[in-house]
Amino acid sequence: MGGAIGAERAGLPASGGVAAVIEALSEPFGARLSTGRALREQHANTITWLANEPPDAVVFVEDTAEVQQVVRACAAHGVPVIAFGTGTSLEGQVNAPKGGICIDLSRMNRVLAVHAEDLDCVVEPGVTRKQLNEHLRDLGLFFPIDPGADASLGGMASTRASGTNAVRYGTMKDNVVALTAVLANGEVITTARRAKKSSAGYDLTRLFVGAEGTLGIITSLTLRLSGLPEAISGGVCPFPTIRSACDAVIMTIQSGLPVARIELLDEVQVRACNAYSKLDLPEQPLLFLEFHGTEAGVHEQAERFGEIAAEFGGGPFTWTARPEERTRLWQARHDAYWACLPLKPGAKALATDVCVPLSRLADCVDETKRDIEEMGMLAPIVGHVGDGNFHTVTLVDMDDPQDVAKAKIFIERMVHRSLAMGGTATGEHGVGQGKKKYLEAEHGRETLDAMRAIKAALDPQNIMNPGKILP
Amino acid sequence: MGGAIGAERAGLPASGGVAAVIEALSEPFGARLSTGRALREQHANTITWLANEPPDAVVFVEDTAEVQQVVRACAAHGVPVIAFGTGTSLEGQVNAPKGGICIDLSRMNRVLAVHAEDLDCVVEPGVTRKQLNEHLRDLGLFFPIDPGADASLGGMASTRASGTNAVRYGTMKDNVVALTAVLANGEVITTARRAKKSSAGYDLTRLFVGAEGTLGIITSLTLRLSGLPEAISGGVCPFPTIRSACDAVIMTIQSGLPVARIELLDEVQVRACNAYSKLDLPEQPLLFLEFHGTEAGVHEQAERFGEIAAEFGGGPFTWTARPEERTRLWQARHDAYWACLPLKPGAKALATDVCVPLSRLADCVDETKRDIEEMGMLAPIVGHVGDGNFHTVTLVDMDDPQDVAKAKIFIERMVHRSLAMGGTATGEHGVGQGKKKYLEAEHGRETLDAMRAIKAALDPQNIMNPGKILP
Repeated sequence: MGGAIGAERAGLPASGGVAAVIEALSEPFGARLSTGRALREQHANTITWLANEPPDAVVFVEDTAEVQQVVRACAAHGVPVIAFGTGTSLEGQVNAPKGGICIDLSRMNRVLAVHAEDLDCVVEPGVTRKQLNEHLRDLGLFFPIDPGADASLGGMASTRASGTNAVRYGTMKDNVVALTAVLANGEVITTARRAKKSSAGYDLTRLFVGAEGTLGIITSLTLRLSGLPEAISGGVCPFPTIRSACDAVIMTIQSGLPVARIELLDEVQVRACNAYSKLDLPEQPLLFLEFHGTEAGVHEQAERFGEIAAEFGGGPFTWTARPEERTRLWQARHDAYWACLPLKPGAKALATDVCVPLSRLADCVDETKRDIEEMGMLAPIVGHVGDGNFHTVTLVDMDDPQDVAKAKIFIERMVHRSLAMGGTATGEHGVGQGKKKYLEAEHGRETLDAMRAIKAALDPQNIMNPGKILP
Repeated sequence: MGGAIGAERAGLPASGGVAAVIEALSEPFGARLSTGRALREQHANTITWLANEPPDAVVFVEDTAEVQQVVRACAAHGVPVIAFGTGTSLEGQVNAPKGGICIDLSRMNRVLAVHAEDLDCVVEPGVTRKQLNEHLRDLGLFFPIDPGADASLGGMASTRASGTNAVRYGTMKDNVVALTAVLANGEVITTARRAKKSSAGYDLTRLFVGAEGTLGIITSLTLRLSGLPEAISGGVCPFPTIRSACDAVIMTIQSGLPVARIELLDEVQVRACNAYSKLDLPEQPLLFLEFHGTEAGVHEQAERFGEIAAEFGGGPFTWTARPEERTRLWQARHDAYWACLPLKPGAKALATDVCVPLSRLADCVDETKRDIEEMGMLAPIVGHVGDGNFHTVTLVDMDDPQDVAKAKIFIERMVHRSLAMGGTATGEHGVGQGKKKYLEAEHGRETLDAMRAIKAALDPQNIMNPGKILP
């Protein structure tokens, strides 16, 4: 269903099955169930160019039993169920194209257990990553996955999020040990034990990570934690060209340097960051780096990277172990999205991501930059390049149909470029509604049929976040 | 179905659907299809105490199209298909309790591509890990997963294998980037692109890793590679008790020391190794360690570990960076299984594994050792303790029904002990036939129902390795 239909639906009163579900849930949930339009629109897609398609009602749940209660009511009437964490997803994952009930999980925000000796913890899905790290700080532990936004951990699991630290610590796929989920039939499953590894049956954990709520609603997560590094060093290294920066990244990864973060900013993004964050970085392609380890280790890593950079014409690599300087730098990196906005006042900044094999990174970024220039677009590039993953932040005047059309063509070309290079349509943002159309080109019909068979097996009525992932 | 039925079946000529399949495949495969009893028995379970349940025929395939051809013929007649790599699985994964066709993949043993810049390669499923590492050596790369046996990579993926290096490099789950598989309907799917990460749809890669051939036959794998470490150090550290050794392991992992291997041997295993490998290790609980990194890094790691060990009464930690000494040590570790056999001449050595949260490792090993003593068993303990994973090698006189019965009770108690401590029935050997009975205790009925639904969706006739994993 298209956005227009959802937009029309927003004004209509709920009817049929949805009305029955709302009635059934009204008494038990009282004021925690709302059909107010503003609230419903806040719970649909807000930060992409996809139309806002609100659910028919939003219900604020407080425990797993309540999630079961809502899902069972919806199942009885064939009504869609959409899980909502913080609403920071980037491809329309929380839209309700077929209406239905949005389950807001933000009140399920308790850290249920921290097992410091086992380097794991158990959290409810509404806990955000910053909240968790605040909770862990005194224990010398942290949860390393950092997608930028202060997303909920349930949402991060559901989109298989990653971010700047993934090159060292992996993605949500690697850091969710187990989860519990409410299935479309209302039953609760737990996918695995707390043991660090297991060969006991199908890996349902990884099946639910990245499923964007289409197979069930995650109601708790067991997460792997890391020890806070004893020492951190980091810095900035300029390069003459994007390609030389990418080549240095390849060599860094290949040489086994356990870099914790290695981020590329193109010169457009650097200019934006300088202006926004009041920095005076050289306005050329830059790598931002961070190393975690022992005092001696982070010094050694930084020095080695400096040597590699020099081989590719980069440098000087200015690095520091002083926290305040590092923080200032990474704050600027995290503010990159916001820094882009003033480049084109009034424009919307649309973040999209692709991920290619590392050997094709320079080609993919180069060609994308050429496209940006030839199409006369404004689209800074910033990337988690240690994983071959990069973003464009396309600045679009949403009131100008030509500008919108051009941006759509640009993103489409970028995705197909990635696919042609053996890459994926999305490294970390997920499919949602926005990237469904690329999934067959990426995986082939037979693979999509297998995904559809699994979806149908676990959700025969197609009530769990319908209209997402599968085209 | 029990072993006895399979054992009886072995002598009978194939009939019905199976006969039709054998006839249909005879012409295209010629001498590559065999119904000889000895060959069939070699292709069924040999190294456990489960009865040998041979397939009706073995076919040696050479490419994906041939796998499709066999699967389609079997699907047409509802005949089971069992994938076979090297036959080193430990829970009866290659048995054919319902007969059927065994697909021997050992001739699909080509390394199809090595992408050194991307740190990945593409292999056929019959390539063994040693063969791959031989192929990679000159490139300065290696594939780190090492389950001991020179298993096929398809088989290692299918049982979600791991081993000594997993504490640093992860398991097969973490090192298979993508795979192609022939489904029960004869179609070929590719689960993912070569990009290092992706959020594009359901994680079918991880679903097939550990599925033991019950969802499809893997016909190629894209594997993540690692750079050969610049320097390696390693050594042996004795401890006064198993518990103090386990506590040192916990502290080592918690402190973030990036140990590459950390293996526990109890004093019984040490005695066996001393005798078998002509070593003079102190006959008390030992940790074998290995560190990978830069020259400075491995020295630092070894020194830090020595300090941690001393805190728990362990030591002296004698370590070396000299390859020949390390090799001798790790050869002894790899020969631990064989070293056990002379402890009880004529006995069969039955390896079983469990995995618990690290904080419970000392408890679980301690209680297991007490059980061994109280039951008067001979069962050395050896473990990948950095992951909370350990093995007993139970020595059983298979001609003595009492000895067999006792060993069964012992293993059953060990599994339930692990489950009671939040652990799993198997950390790395898989479920096969041997551990099916524990799966409901581990996961619960609802989770098993979800696994069954997925199995039925992808294999409605239940022809892919039936009788494995799901009870």
